[in-house]
Amino acid sequence: MASGKINVSVENIFPLIKKFLYSDHEIFLRELVSNATDATLKLKHLTTIGETDVAYGNPVIEVKIDKEGKKLHIIDQGLGMSAEEVEKYINQIAFSGAEEFLEKYKDSAKDSGVIGHFGLGFYSAFMVASKVEIITKSYKDEPAAHWTCDGSPEFTLVPSDKTDRGSEVILHIAEDSLEFLEESRIKELLTKYNKFMPIPIKFGTKQETLPKPEDAPEDYKTEYVEVDNIINNPTPAWTKLPVDLTDEDYKKFYHELYPMQFEEPLFTIHLNVDYPFNLTGILYFPKITADLQMQKDKIQLYQNQVYVTDNVEGIVPEFLGMLKGVIDSPDIPLNVSRSYLQADGNVKKISNYITRKVADKLKSLINENREDFEKKWNDIKIVLEYGMLSEPKFYEKSADFVLYPTTDNKYYTLAELKEALAPNQTDKDGKLVVLYASSKEAQHSYIEIAKDKGYQVILLDSPIISHLVQKLESDNENLTFARVDADFIDKLIQKDEETSSKLSDEEKEKLKTVLETIVPKEKYSVQLENLDSKAAPFMITQPEFMRRMKEMSASGGGGGMFGMGNFPDMYNLVVNTNSEIATTILATENEEAKTTLVKQALDLAKLSQGLLKGEELTAFVKRSFESIK
Amino acid sequence: MASGKINVSVENIFPLIKKFLYSDHEIFLRELVSNATDATLKLKHLTTIGETDVAYGNPVIEVKIDKEGKKLHIIDQGLGMSAEEVEKYINQIAFSGAEEFLEKYKDSAKDSGVIGHFGLGFYSAFMVASKVEIITKSYKDEPAAHWTCDGSPEFTLVPSDKTDRGSEVILHIAEDSLEFLEESRIKELLTKYNKFMPIPIKFGTKQETLPKPEDAPEDYKTEYVEVDNIINNPTPAWTKLPVDLTDEDYKKFYHELYPMQFEEPLFTIHLNVDYPFNLTGILYFPKITADLQMQKDKIQLYQNQVYVTDNVEGIVPEFLGMLKGVIDSPDIPLNVSRSYLQADGNVKKISNYITRKVADKLKSLINENREDFEKKWNDIKIVLEYGMLSEPKFYEKSADFVLYPTTDNKYYTLAELKEALAPNQTDKDGKLVVLYASSKEAQHSYIEIAKDKGYQVILLDSPIISHLVQKLESDNENLTFARVDADFIDKLIQKDEETSSKLSDEEKEKLKTVLETIVPKEKYSVQLENLDSKAAPFMITQPEFMRRMKEMSASGGGGGMFGMGNFPDMYNLVVNTNSEIATTILATENEEAKTTLVKQALDLAKLSQGLLKGEELTAFVKRSFESIK
Repeated sequence: MASGKINVSVENIFPLIKKFLYSDHEIFLRELVSNATDATLKLKHLTTIGETDVAYGNPVIEVKIDKEGKKLHIIDQGLGMSAEEVEKYINQIAFSGAEEFLEKYKDSAKDSGVIGHFGLGFYSAFMVASKVEIITKSYKDEPAAHWTCDGSPEFTLVPSDKTDRGSEVILHIAEDSLEFLEESRIKELLTKYNKFMPIPIKFGTKQETLPKPEDAPEDYKTEYVEVDNIINNPTPAWTKLPVDLTDEDYKKFYHELYPMQFEEPLFTIHLNVDYPFNLTGILYFPKITADLQMQKDKIQLYQNQVYVTDNVEGIVPEFLGMLKGVIDSPDIPLNVSRSYLQADGNVKKISNYITRKVADKLKSLINENREDFEKKWNDIKIVLEYGMLSEPKFYEKSADFVLYPTTDNKYYTLAELKEALAPNQTDKDGKLVVLYASSKEAQHSYIEIAKDKGYQVILLDSPIISHLVQKLESDNENLTFARVDADFIDKLIQKDEETSSKLSDEEKEKLKTVLETIVPKEKYSVQLENLDSKAAPFMITQPEFMRRMKEMSASGGGGGMFGMGNFPDMYNLVVNTNSEIATTILATENEEAKTTLVKQALDLAKLSQGLLKGEELTAFVKRSFESIK
Repeated sequence: MASGKINVSVENIFPLIKKFLYSDHEIFLRELVSNATDATLKLKHLTTIGETDVAYGNPVIEVKIDKEGKKLHIIDQGLGMSAEEVEKYINQIAFSGAEEFLEKYKDSAKDSGVIGHFGLGFYSAFMVASKVEIITKSYKDEPAAHWTCDGSPEFTLVPSDKTDRGSEVILHIAEDSLEFLEESRIKELLTKYNKFMPIPIKFGTKQETLPKPEDAPEDYKTEYVEVDNIINNPTPAWTKLPVDLTDEDYKKFYHELYPMQFEEPLFTIHLNVDYPFNLTGILYFPKITADLQMQKDKIQLYQNQVYVTDNVEGIVPEFLGMLKGVIDSPDIPLNVSRSYLQADGNVKKISNYITRKVADKLKSLINENREDFEKKWNDIKIVLEYGMLSEPKFYEKSADFVLYPTTDNKYYTLAELKEALAPNQTDKDGKLVVLYASSKEAQHSYIEIAKDKGYQVILLDSPIISHLVQKLESDNENLTFARVDADFIDKLIQKDEETSSKLSDEEKEKLKTVLETIVPKEKYSVQLENLDSKAAPFMITQPEFMRRMKEMSASGGGGGMFGMGNFPDMYNLVVNTNSEIATTILATENEEAKTTLVKQALDLAKLSQGLLKGEELTAFVKRSFESIK
């Protein structure tokens, strides 16, 4: 029997690390700046706990391009390394210094924000550099060291004459990566990944106006001074406590996060939790617009102020995908698949926490300022309605803040709606009927008819409303929804009253026969009703159930019936037997005149339902022009 | 001066490989089956070139679940390994056996389909297994070996009594990965990744009906036999030559690729190139439907018959993203970022090749069967029009096969269109005016007016048409596009003729004044025109330029003017001075009657342009019902 230790062949693993460690080459800068930040924060921690008495000062990290020399420098004023430490931390791949440090100073280091996640990060430098140097001097009294490696596993390590504390990493940028010598590219990367890192990052200089001296002469010329150009905000809003932030601060941070965004957010949700996971962040409800820029601005995920991604699928519940803002959590596993994320317990907890926080915030908003909330309703409803359908936990809480606006701009919660409608819109079977419209314009005439009866009409115009209405019906006993054009109004809310008919049964029979010979029966079922004589003589309705099933099938995602979307539309033609036109039709002997009258009345009914189009509409308009000249 | 070799610390790199090598844990099975395939193909190659005289036979790869023992077995009948080879290939991480093999048998191996890309793949087993065993016997006359490793770098290697050639890998599935002991899960993975791998893969058995014997008795009962269940098709259509495939074969393969897809593809493009890169594949133009399933079925990327991904962004030009099918190429770098793909020369060449092949195929299709191509036009136009706008190389070739259908279903290429329209639709300045409509229904009355003049109207109803029309105008001198409702017809195609007016200049002035007091001027500019007395008396038009810019701005992606989408719509009200209504308006003294007449005429014009809605429409219908009773 033999046994032994698996051997990692350096010659082979090294190019592999370079190639596969990160799929995105640009990540190298994030890694190196993270390391520099790490080294600085470690020093800060050591001075704080009195482990060293060197002066921490006001350290910055500097990123510098040497275009001529084809070099990129990353310089910090942190811990630095002795030659032995270089041996240990750099020459032994995957021996993560941060991890060992954390192990040693466990409890005290936990809150000091040490970034310990990017252990192998340094080697990502070789993705873009043909040669890498480190010149470093430890905060301890030891000689400085100079390490050089050309991407083969061979390195050299010699003493250096560097006198100031910290490390300088020098990348000799490879020929295929010269883009990383462009100022604009580096600026782009620093802005993308390091905009909110906790140590100031200097990239170049900028001019600042000097204050005008008090004794300035008449012809004083403004004077300028070159100052360090700090590209980051080391203390972004989400790292602060909600009590220390004003509404203005939140708005300011929104624009800092999305500089191309000119709209103001509607409201803000500050996330802050320590247990059972660590997460901070700020979410914004944006005004939903068709703006392309808007869609590009997504929620950003950070770990200890380092930008990771703007793909938060699986972490933020899907229905909140339209929100903006940041989430910062060291507890979200990186580089893992979506299915893994979904299975991860911590991630599920984070997602639930966010859902709960959003629901709680919505509840407090509506309680604090109902009027303001109503004003914003139209901009947030899509998100909330989608949340009701997709997240049971959100649905449970939604009754407190989801609104049902009427076509006259009154806003009810579901409970208020039931109370307001009960006296007038309960039908003879004790069912409460909520009348709704999907468009004030398209269903205008039907809305008017309902309002004339003293009914209120709710405006539900989101694309997923059929699903929502279906759900509300199944969860609320004796509650039913009907679109205003689903039938004529007295059939939608059936009461015991009956309007009597001017016509005898025989006349009705005759009228029906006449109508059915003229009206195309594959499209319209003729339905005679005894309505008020002033009500519309002809009206087209579309039965609720069929329409709703078709809509649910078309918008997909469960519910509805498979293939229902392909059924032809079926309509009813409601004819008012008490209308003058009904009488006229019966009285007209001339076949052509009768046909013309019925067709014109049908055309008008189709117009009201938006069904008169194309050739039929052209003919109608032409005829009408003839009749008015 | 010190120098040395970077040392990879095994204890630290090993968990890293396990964790980061692949973000998707399920990949392990693809890797192990690939290795098994590799070992089998290598043996085949050696027997083919006479390097060994062992019998190749009909080897299969078997995948077997031992649920009780919590083990998963992958068994091949390939090359096998001696103890020394295990030492070399397994214990030395990243010493890819395939690469060495390829190096040795360079030229002869090139075409034998050896999969040499997944060097580190074996170790992915540790992502799901707490312990891994290999029991293996080489095709050479050497004792079998048994290797065991529990995920620490320690292994044991002992002799085994295995007598048949090949390797068996046994995974002791870890507690957090028990899903991989479910038959359905393994079947799902084999189907996803190995469905078209070149060696038969056995997973369980299935029952097959035995043929009824000739002398079967009356009461013969069907007999069954258990046979190996082979889950893959080792010779998928794309590995064959086009000459060996019929239309039926292509369709059959389409359904093999997308078993949930019931529609037939419209046509097929077989890709096959050896130089300067290696690529085979079959692309399908699908019938575009709103079907959700359809959107899920994407082009699949393979490498040597191993499924890699269905994200072909960067490899297949964006405008072909709606196509279906497979691409198989060993020359596409994996695990790299999109920006890297875009910069990679080979990938750019592949993308260009695909664009060219698609264009060539379209050209040959239209040449071979114009009628059939015209029938399919409506289903493919979106892809092609988008391609014209986004790929200059495609645009160059598009003139040969892009069609412009008239509202009467005649189909022209651009050259044909120019020729057909030139005699009748060239205006007095020598500009050829192409009249178009975006909808036969919505613009019906305008189309009729144009057709009455003897003009042809092209139907351009894609959402990006404004951009396309803009581009065609800028690339074709003296060609201009105008939507039929952009002005009244004689202004759209200006000829030298002039229709005289019934009205004097003074009467016209008066008419205009009357109209402008009644018609809301913030919405409509009144434009008097001397038209044929039978032409529409009132007509609403929307100027081409403004409408087009607004559309381009709304659909985004360059062109149009920034913010133009938010401009209010502006319309012209064209009033025919020679119409009877114009005369009547002038003759009516009663102010109320005059207003009623103008408003009714305006309503009718708005109806034709789809602008009469909501309250206005309800009032119009009510009025009209009154007038016919």
